[in-house]
Amino acid sequence: MALTDTEIRKAKAKNSADRMSDGGALYLSRPGWYDGRTKPWPSPAPWKHAGNGSCDVEIARREVRQPSRRAKICTSDEGLKDMSETAVMAEQRTHEQKLDLLAEVAVRVGLGLQPGQELVMTASLDSLALARRITEQAYRAGASLVTTLYSDDEAALMRYRFAADESFDHAAKWLYDGMGAAFKSGAARLAIAGGNPTLLSNEDAGKVGRANRAVSQAYRPALELITRHEINWTIVASATPAWAAAMFPGEPEDVAVAKLWEAIFQTTRINADDPVAAWKTHDAELHRRAARLNEKRYAALQYRGPGTDFRLGLADDHLWLGGGTTAGNGLYCIPNMPTEEVFTTPHKGRADGTVTATKPLSHQGTMIEGIHVRFEKGRIVEARASRGQEVLQRLIDTDEGARRLGEVALVPHSSPIAASGLLFLNTLFDENAASHIALGQAYTSCLRDGDKLTPEQLAAKGANDSLIHVDWMIGSGKLDIDGITATEVAEPLMRQGEWV
Amino acid sequence: MALTDTEIRKAKAKNSADRMSDGGALYLSRPGWYDGRTKPWPSPAPWKHAGNGSCDVEIARREVRQPSRRAKICTSDEGLKDMSETAVMAEQRTHEQKLDLLAEVAVRVGLGLQPGQELVMTASLDSLALARRITEQAYRAGASLVTTLYSDDEAALMRYRFAADESFDHAAKWLYDGMGAAFKSGAARLAIAGGNPTLLSNEDAGKVGRANRAVSQAYRPALELITRHEINWTIVASATPAWAAAMFPGEPEDVAVAKLWEAIFQTTRINADDPVAAWKTHDAELHRRAARLNEKRYAALQYRGPGTDFRLGLADDHLWLGGGTTAGNGLYCIPNMPTEEVFTTPHKGRADGTVTATKPLSHQGTMIEGIHVRFEKGRIVEARASRGQEVLQRLIDTDEGARRLGEVALVPHSSPIAASGLLFLNTLFDENAASHIALGQAYTSCLRDGDKLTPEQLAAKGANDSLIHVDWMIGSGKLDIDGITATEVAEPLMRQGEWV
Repeated sequence: MALTDTEIRKAKAKNSADRMSDGGALYLSRPGWYDGRTKPWPSPAPWKHAGNGSCDVEIARREVRQPSRRAKICTSDEGLKDMSETAVMAEQRTHEQKLDLLAEVAVRVGLGLQPGQELVMTASLDSLALARRITEQAYRAGASLVTTLYSDDEAALMRYRFAADESFDHAAKWLYDGMGAAFKSGAARLAIAGGNPTLLSNEDAGKVGRANRAVSQAYRPALELITRHEINWTIVASATPAWAAAMFPGEPEDVAVAKLWEAIFQTTRINADDPVAAWKTHDAELHRRAARLNEKRYAALQYRGPGTDFRLGLADDHLWLGGGTTAGNGLYCIPNMPTEEVFTTPHKGRADGTVTATKPLSHQGTMIEGIHVRFEKGRIVEARASRGQEVLQRLIDTDEGARRLGEVALVPHSSPIAASGLLFLNTLFDENAASHIALGQAYTSCLRDGDKLTPEQLAAKGANDSLIHVDWMIGSGKLDIDGITATEVAEPLMRQGEWV
Repeated sequence: MALTDTEIRKAKAKNSADRMSDGGALYLSRPGWYDGRTKPWPSPAPWKHAGNGSCDVEIARREVRQPSRRAKICTSDEGLKDMSETAVMAEQRTHEQKLDLLAEVAVRVGLGLQPGQELVMTASLDSLALARRITEQAYRAGASLVTTLYSDDEAALMRYRFAADESFDHAAKWLYDGMGAAFKSGAARLAIAGGNPTLLSNEDAGKVGRANRAVSQAYRPALELITRHEINWTIVASATPAWAAAMFPGEPEDVAVAKLWEAIFQTTRINADDPVAAWKTHDAELHRRAARLNEKRYAALQYRGPGTDFRLGLADDHLWLGGGTTAGNGLYCIPNMPTEEVFTTPHKGRADGTVTATKPLSHQGTMIEGIHVRFEKGRIVEARASRGQEVLQRLIDTDEGARRLGEVALVPHSSPIAASGLLFLNTLFDENAASHIALGQAYTSCLRDGDKLTPEQLAAKGANDSLIHVDWMIGSGKLDIDGITATEVAEPLMRQGEWV
């Protein structure tokens, strides 16, 4: 799994990173999780559904084109909205109906919001429509109070245009501490992603870095409650004009935004006949994959594909994760929507061979393309890019850990995100498009009892340590992956990008 | 001076009240102040101007129609924007220029923001345009960081539509505590007023009251830093469609909003040739009036006008206030824009006679019209209204202090707000349209060393105590007011609504 393309801000926050824009602007991004108590769908479920449970991921994906007898998921006894009588087809849903469904799935499946629970939401002003739908759904689900902290891209840019240099070492610590207090008093956390991926790309990189660092430091205490999964939380995305423009540069704004919305609905299973059933099936499948890999306890993975011949050792006591988790407050949540990956921690000293990226890497507003890297004993000894070489070089020079790997994730080439053929320029999506590896910081949650280990113990098991965590897509329809057992037996895991 | 029409929420917050909408929505309203260190325009001034200082309030008001050689006030050495060369006339300013001027005056004159100071702003989403201008001006003035907390009327209404009953005893204490932490660490505070005055008028009054009470309790610690003037703060207004619709019900939205903007520009002296000079002159005038009244130390005021024959005793050791103040952090600010009043604390046991309101009172979404009240020994013994009698009765039955007076304010009939002929349905404006009295809570700052007195000492001096503070306009062009000295000599203060 991965962090946003702005993860350099995270200043070693374990398990996650966040992105907060400047003017009190918040948008939390996107960890992995595992707390040993995970069970796919606890009973009683925080939501109800009446769909079938037999379809697998692929069926769920194809449901999009099948007629539906239900346009709305069932919500609660009070709010039950079975629309079977009206026989609305999934493909006939209006944009407004899809927006409502996305909000409902986010609140009830992603967040698992409980009656009486407070909700703290962050969103950009461009995400107002979805934020309002989520507010409604949260109150329908019994939220005691929904507080949304809106960020404004215009205000963020004004800071770069007009503020004194000293400003950029400053963050709204009072606000982040306030969020932490909310989490401690039982609030759930929902972030709407969808910011302009190139918002600060023309600003002074030094100032951007300082501002990010200040936010990282200010937000760390609150963020740790998220990354340790002490509360239920999730991230969903809203199409915004700026993001859509970056993804579809040739299109008129309304067309681009509509295309992005459709891509979001499609990849978050909102176009499924029964989105809740689809998510249930999908989540169970991710847990099943992770469990099987954990049983196998492979020592390493072997990758073979165009430009890639690479062996990656896994950390001692590594743990594969994927899908939802039960948070410390006892509530089951799916922290990322979409999520398609199972992932674990590689051994920082055991990567050898060459790897070629299969997608461009959008890093802090710069596109790095044609990445080709050679590893020796876990360390990058050669790094080339056909475009953005300088940024790549600066990235891997951040610290010693920036040249080593902190994550390995397996995603089938048939994932809805890959199937869309789109580069979303947003890690929440792009990391779910292909198998990937990440330079930098490892997730302690991907090691057995990892959260209880000292930094020295973590290092001894092979967990990497760095200020950065940058995902990097290497999967494709031409990639084969084998699991290598402790006795050096190769077992096929993926062929032509798909699970065997 | 007065509190908003939602002041019943304040739960005895001394000196002020606040209004916060529900979804993390904040809008702070509107105290008086005095800290013994007030000086009209400290040197060095936080802003610069090159205007003349000789015009008085009336001239400043008439400047609107005079040609100007300056479209922008001077800001800082760096940001100096003297547009004298372009010879833009005041009346030729575009809406955008006026918006910029309002933002600049709010930041530099109202707030007195200092370089390196953080700013916490609250605004409704409908006030985005002004909030962005203020953000720019704050950064230009050297703000270290501007954080805006936006409230959303739609989200507030969703709570009433969809939330469980238990929700209404809940407030975002974590957010208010966060604001308090910001104030304590040196942040300034700016509120943009302009919410829909009838937003919650159709909602369950019990729920509205409970939600207000929860917010009052949660916000009290932070609000006290405002009401004690420990930091610099101000309130300015933005036209919003809902507010404009309430004020101009017959007009199309764009016409109504344009009319309201023009009324705001006019009453906040943005249409003046040099708004900063106009504010300087005006502020000095308010201080001069208050100082003269403090020298006189009248025992009582005698009101005579149509339907009004009323003697109001003043509290022992009362203090007249008006205009700006130097906050505890040493920064000079003008907390309300507009402000036209000088005000003090009456004696809760010394009001006798009849009073007729000269304007309708908009109270929590209800219009109370034709108010006529008789006092005996400070207490309302008879209260009538031609419309809204029931709400009036409920109001004065809130508690024993709700039948007595907590404030008396003098405003000339020629004030820009009165001259506009508009009922703004917003206390920030309406209380500056006419001389008024307020039922309920007294301001301790309007007593000598009032902030150091115990409740018993305050009561002994005549300061009233109540959960409410409701302003009530009694001034007009037909009202005469005398000051009554300790030896029962009557001295004319106002004739036909104007200072003598």
